Amino acid sequence: MKKPIEFRIEKKIDGSLARVGKICTPHGIIETPAFITVGTRAAVRGLTVEMLHDTGVETIIANTYHLYMQPGDLKVRAMGGIHKIMNWSGPIMTDSGGFQVFSLGAGYGTNVSKILKSAPMVPLIKERDEEEIKPKLVEIDYDGAAFKSPTDGSIHYITPERSIEMQHNIGADIIFAFDECTSPIESRTYQSEALDRTHRWAERSLEYHRQKREQNGDSPASKQALFGIVQGGRYEDLRKESAKTIGEMDFDGYGIGGSFDKEDLHTAVRWVNEILPENKPRHLLGIGEPEDLFLGVENGCDTFDCVAPTRLGRHGTVYTREGKIHIGNVLYGEDLRPLDSGCQCYACKNYTRAYIGHLYKSREMLGPMLCSIHNLYFIVNLVKDMRKALLADTFQKFKSDFLAKYKN
Amino acid sequence: MKKPIEFRIEKKIDGSLARVGKICTPHGIIETPAFITVGTRAAVRGLTVEMLHDTGVETIIANTYHLYMQPGDLKVRAMGGIHKIMNWSGPIMTDSGGFQVFSLGAGYGTNVSKILKSAPMVPLIKERDEEEIKPKLVEIDYDGAAFKSPTDGSIHYITPERSIEMQHNIGADIIFAFDECTSPIESRTYQSEALDRTHRWAERSLEYHRQKREQNGDSPASKQALFGIVQGGRYEDLRKESAKTIGEMDFDGYGIGGSFDKEDLHTAVRWVNEILPENKPRHLLGIGEPEDLFLGVENGCDTFDCVAPTRLGRHGTVYTREGKIHIGNVLYGEDLRPLDSGCQCYACKNYTRAYIGHLYKSREMLGPMLCSIHNLYFIVNLVKDMRKALLADTFQKFKSDFLAKYKN
Repeated sequence: MKKPIEFRIEKKIDGSLARVGKICTPHGIIETPAFITVGTRAAVRGLTVEMLHDTGVETIIANTYHLYMQPGDLKVRAMGGIHKIMNWSGPIMTDSGGFQVFSLGAGYGTNVSKILKSAPMVPLIKERDEEEIKPKLVEIDYDGAAFKSPTDGSIHYITPERSIEMQHNIGADIIFAFDECTSPIESRTYQSEALDRTHRWAERSLEYHRQKREQNGDSPASKQALFGIVQGGRYEDLRKESAKTIGEMDFDGYGIGGSFDKEDLHTAVRWVNEILPENKPRHLLGIGEPEDLFLGVENGCDTFDCVAPTRLGRHGTVYTREGKIHIGNVLYGEDLRPLDSGCQCYACKNYTRAYIGHLYKSREMLGPMLCSIHNLYFIVNLVKDMRKALLADTFQKFKSDFLAKYKN
Repeated sequence: MKKPIEFRIEKKIDGSLARVGKICTPHGIIETPAFITVGTRAAVRGLTVEMLHDTGVETIIANTYHLYMQPGDLKVRAMGGIHKIMNWSGPIMTDSGGFQVFSLGAGYGTNVSKILKSAPMVPLIKERDEEEIKPKLVEIDYDGAAFKSPTDGSIHYITPERSIEMQHNIGADIIFAFDECTSPIESRTYQSEALDRTHRWAERSLEYHRQKREQNGDSPASKQALFGIVQGGRYEDLRKESAKTIGEMDFDGYGIGGSFDKEDLHTAVRWVNEILPENKPRHLLGIGEPEDLFLGVENGCDTFDCVAPTRLGRHGTVYTREGKIHIGNVLYGEDLRPLDSGCQCYACKNYTRAYIGHLYKSREMLGPMLCSIHNLYFIVNLVKDMRKALLADTFQKFKSDFLAKYKN
């Protein structure tokens, strides 16, 4: 059976894992490295598809968990599939729902990011067997995960098969195997058990997908590529074991999941990408800050996604070549420069910091819209510039020049 | 001194006050009758200027009170004026701030609309001298109105001169005289006193504007047209007195202010427009429902503004040829038709009711954006169609056909 996607490596960089490539999907080509924009509920917050095209966005990733909860994966199918409903003719990915399901457990969210920022980490790490942080909304067993809807308290149970079925119904070009995305505060024992589950679920996801593809050659499933997900937390042996196990399965590509610290991101990614098959695309899940994108690209990742550009933009934080600024700051109240001097995005070509700051202070919707447009343009084009630099053999210079100016 | 705007009547309708015209402003022509879109804080909620152009919007009205409070009228001037900051090259109006200042007093808002909807009205009418509804945030004297900011408690004082000065700073093409917009629940005695203030303030607004225009022929004020505002509540004699008094002053055009009931809108407007000079444009403030627009047009109003299209759209209510629907209704959960069949707006050309309902239920920003685009397109083009019908002598048929289908 014909592969739903084709990955062509155009150039490999000597002495590095980095490469330049093209992922050919039924809905067009993703030139890699590429930043994939998050459209959680089949919509990118605050942007129409025309605005997305303007920012240079080529590919969107939606969240299966959210679409399962509302409007429901069957309803997405009944409405014509995700491309049709959101009027997006380019490539679309969906994640497996694993991250959202497991983030309903204890240890995720604000607390974790606080914990991760604190050093030393050890005293703050809480083990899963400590009563008070046991997950309240999710229970995991051999076959899958049961969770309670945080909105209406209804109980749902997702297995690998059900995750893939949902993703078939939603109809993206690239879908992901169901995995357990563990919290970094979990114990090593727990990480190891969870990894076993992830590997077992990967096999089941793959098998279910294969069956459905073979049952009906014209089904949407036949045009969908399935990526396996490597987990293993911060443990080198677990990451390598996971890369080997998942890499040996016949996926169309691979995702690298988990929460990372700035410090361990590049090592974890390198461990994995040194093992994963070279001829298949690799997606680094949930990573999108400029420094991390450089690390991901030079360590062999092809695509990235992150809510940061739109989430930060919605709350008034914008990227500039000198680092992030908050547009509500009194500093910019009379600043007639664009958000980022030299930027060619819609917001920068037409509006000043002072005006966008006024919109932010006034809670005018146009404020988040303009900041999100700018941030997406900034991040999408930063990765496009990395691609150009790789092709021109100037990546290291581009990186050091960028990071010398960019202060976070 | 050259008039900043020119009003040309293209056609008068026999046996009616209705007319078709053109208001030529320094930023382009307003073909009348026309619906003017509200951009309270120098932004139309949820729409970029390109989206506004797509909906057919030609003119925007911003609110002086809101821009005075944030970012401040002087700051708008320092930023280059309202056209420049919001990147809108078409005509712009600003209101006087009167409506917002006085709506801080008792009797406005939700309560009033409840009162207005209840019949009989008399038992519900509360007089200003009843202690419990005395205005809390505004005090009126001979010269102007003092009010307390509802956000930070700071005290502000607006006189006619200050209102015009603010509007000079903001820099719209058409500005309005400072008036007292009374609540319809006020007593006749109060309405009459308020009307005297409005007339005195109209003279002072006009005089201040004249002085500023003469002081500096190149000042923004020299390119700004000033409209006087007719008030008088629901009282025929007060409305006629106001139309006569304001109509005799040398304004460039006229606004008709006040709150109306469906039942008394057309009579109040007719009383006024039978008296106002025919050769100057008339703007009906704050009116935008389809039925009311028909009444306004056939009773001689040229322009209209209302927050309804964007406010309703933001909250999921959309106009259709059959009446308003709420897109969150379970009825539309699997409805693959556009919001309004046959509509050529961006939302209707690209999306279904089911998808937009999903966005609404998901609180995705794109939902309010699409509903606002649709509603603006609907209302702006409804008034454009009235214009065409007037020119084609088919207005009454157009009106009866439309209202026969449109059920509210």
